[in-house]
Amino acid sequence: MTEHYLDNSATTQVSEASAKKAFELMRTNYANPSSLHSMGFAASKELEGARSQVAKALGADVSEIYFTSGGTEANNLAVLGAVNAKKRAGNRIITTAFEHSSVYETMLNLAKEGYDVVFIKPDSSGCINAKEVIDAVDSKTILISIMHTNNETGAINPIREIAVGAKRKNPSVLVHTDAVQAFGKTEVKPSKLFADLLSISGHKIHAPKGVGALYVKKGVRILPRSFGGKQEKKLRTGTEALPLIGAFGVAVSELDIQKNTETVKSLKTYLIDKLSALADITINSPEASTPYILNFSVKGIRSETMLHHLASKGVYVSSGSACSKGGKSHVLSALGFEDNRADSALRVSFSKHNTIEDCDALVCALEDGIENLARR
Amino acid sequence: MTEHYLDNSATTQVSEASAKKAFELMRTNYANPSSLHSMGFAASKELEGARSQVAKALGADVSEIYFTSGGTEANNLAVLGAVNAKKRAGNRIITTAFEHSSVYETMLNLAKEGYDVVFIKPDSSGCINAKEVIDAVDSKTILISIMHTNNETGAINPIREIAVGAKRKNPSVLVHTDAVQAFGKTEVKPSKLFADLLSISGHKIHAPKGVGALYVKKGVRILPRSFGGKQEKKLRTGTEALPLIGAFGVAVSELDIQKNTETVKSLKTYLIDKLSALADITINSPEASTPYILNFSVKGIRSETMLHHLASKGVYVSSGSACSKGGKSHVLSALGFEDNRADSALRVSFSKHNTIEDCDALVCALEDGIENLARR
Repeated sequence: MTEHYLDNSATTQVSEASAKKAFELMRTNYANPSSLHSMGFAASKELEGARSQVAKALGADVSEIYFTSGGTEANNLAVLGAVNAKKRAGNRIITTAFEHSSVYETMLNLAKEGYDVVFIKPDSSGCINAKEVIDAVDSKTILISIMHTNNETGAINPIREIAVGAKRKNPSVLVHTDAVQAFGKTEVKPSKLFADLLSISGHKIHAPKGVGALYVKKGVRILPRSFGGKQEKKLRTGTEALPLIGAFGVAVSELDIQKNTETVKSLKTYLIDKLSALADITINSPEASTPYILNFSVKGIRSETMLHHLASKGVYVSSGSACSKGGKSHVLSALGFEDNRADSALRVSFSKHNTIEDCDALVCALEDGIENLARR
Repeated sequence: MTEHYLDNSATTQVSEASAKKAFELMRTNYANPSSLHSMGFAASKELEGARSQVAKALGADVSEIYFTSGGTEANNLAVLGAVNAKKRAGNRIITTAFEHSSVYETMLNLAKEGYDVVFIKPDSSGCINAKEVIDAVDSKTILISIMHTNNETGAINPIREIAVGAKRKNPSVLVHTDAVQAFGKTEVKPSKLFADLLSISGHKIHAPKGVGALYVKKGVRILPRSFGGKQEKKLRTGTEALPLIGAFGVAVSELDIQKNTETVKSLKTYLIDKLSALADITINSPEASTPYILNFSVKGIRSETMLHHLASKGVYVSSGSACSKGGKSHVLSALGFEDNRADSALRVSFSKHNTIEDCDALVCALEDGIENLARR
């Protein structure tokens, strides 16, 4: 059976060059980058080389990049590191009701601790309205954390507009954006977004799982959440996962945003066209969404039922985010979807490796599912 | 130049089978273990297979193993997760003055926050005296965190004796041990040690950097430090670093503790014998120390000077721990060493791959260094 992997926002296949770099850093150049001998220096050089690659892709300085174990750790560190550093300056934090769970759960916890956490809901366009965020900013606001691209619907939020407006109202507010689903897929430059903190992850862009990074703008101070050695200027201690970090650097250097965008854009357009010919399908992704993600609901068929049917045909998609393991999606709830629409949602997510054949296989399996599953 | 890597307590070369497993999990079986389709299930099976390997090696149940990004994260989670869960039960925490920085720095921070942190110093034997620890236990003691094997001197502490005595005095006290330098090198069974929490790391036993695990005894509750998805039963969220975790499982399955111990024991005995013939060398490792580590000082020659000289001869050792990046060793200070002894300390750390030739190359380079560096 030919396999059609359309779950690239859950994770991607690691590129051959990236995996080979990891292998090399496990087997050949394997020393501890903190070791003071020449083998350690060689490892350290690889670490700093990867940091340069990531910094370059973000239009940032190498001193602004801190490697983490992934997007979740980067998001946790950004939000809690900022809040802990600024807690004397105020009590208000602004976020959205459809953040990734690594921000959303952190915010729920901060709310429990007594912070005044404002959860902005996406408006009827499916995206966050900048004015609503800016209106919520007051003199006690210490942090805004709003994702760049939503992981379930692909909605793109106006980070730059939010940051500029918020900082005009309160210049001391810190702006964080979770750019895990945006990095490597569209231009993500923190300086252009006016973001102070920005999270990225490796495994969404053909690097291995287990590595990510946090951009911290020069001059911005956040507190560490880990205690230990002197790695990552003590903001994130622990022996650096060099095989993964080196592999991340390679995957970043392989990015060809323009070319890949053209590929997935044409796939998304093609797929929407095909789906619109099917009865009982409602598109959930907003107009302003990444070409990498298409979310839609199939009337009357629960997500998991269809997902397993598709998998039986070799087509792999997702219901909501992989991180929620099939739990109810707070993202689709935030969009105000009725239960039956949220419960029948599927997320297709592309990579540069996908083809028209993958889309055709999906549509064919969907048609079959609609015919056979609904009948039961 | 032949290379002689004698810095295995800083990190080890990843075994071929372990690195190959990582490669496979990056390239072939690459799905997200939380994805609900068959590719996700295949990934999840690998995850649980690795968990079984680790659990088996610890004589633990699979439900007691939580993967982390390494030893530092496991230690941070154990100490802070336990303290946060038990803060209403008391204020006293007992640790030692020569813990790895990931415990030591965490404890310094807890002391700053107002906890009554008792730092027990190693006694004249170079190890922690169990009675001193037990004497410090009171009704307000919530946690004891004492490393199994010290990372700089190799000192082995009487964890079982400490745990049994402490729990007899206060049954509610939690016992954590950092077993990063012990796991895979000697039998480490938390149930035999009476440990509630136990940290291990992959990259000290020929698995990649970036993965470790925390054992949490069934029924023991600690609080998570990360917020996000449902991975690792929400104690440690974030997409699992499957390539590393799978590679960790393989490295664990390759362990042959008895055979390896014989190898490194004979190397350590051989090296001590050779060093005792050299003037100006003082052994710093205590009698009760792991065969994997030998720490000694070379009179009158600073650690870094000798370390670089040795590296120029292709011999790689360490001054103190790699994590401290050449900073003053709090471990050797805790042992009460005078500055000139601490400042001239070198740590040789073996793996199963080392040979008599490595020891001879070290001794030869040391002799040369003593002759030429002291003269300057």
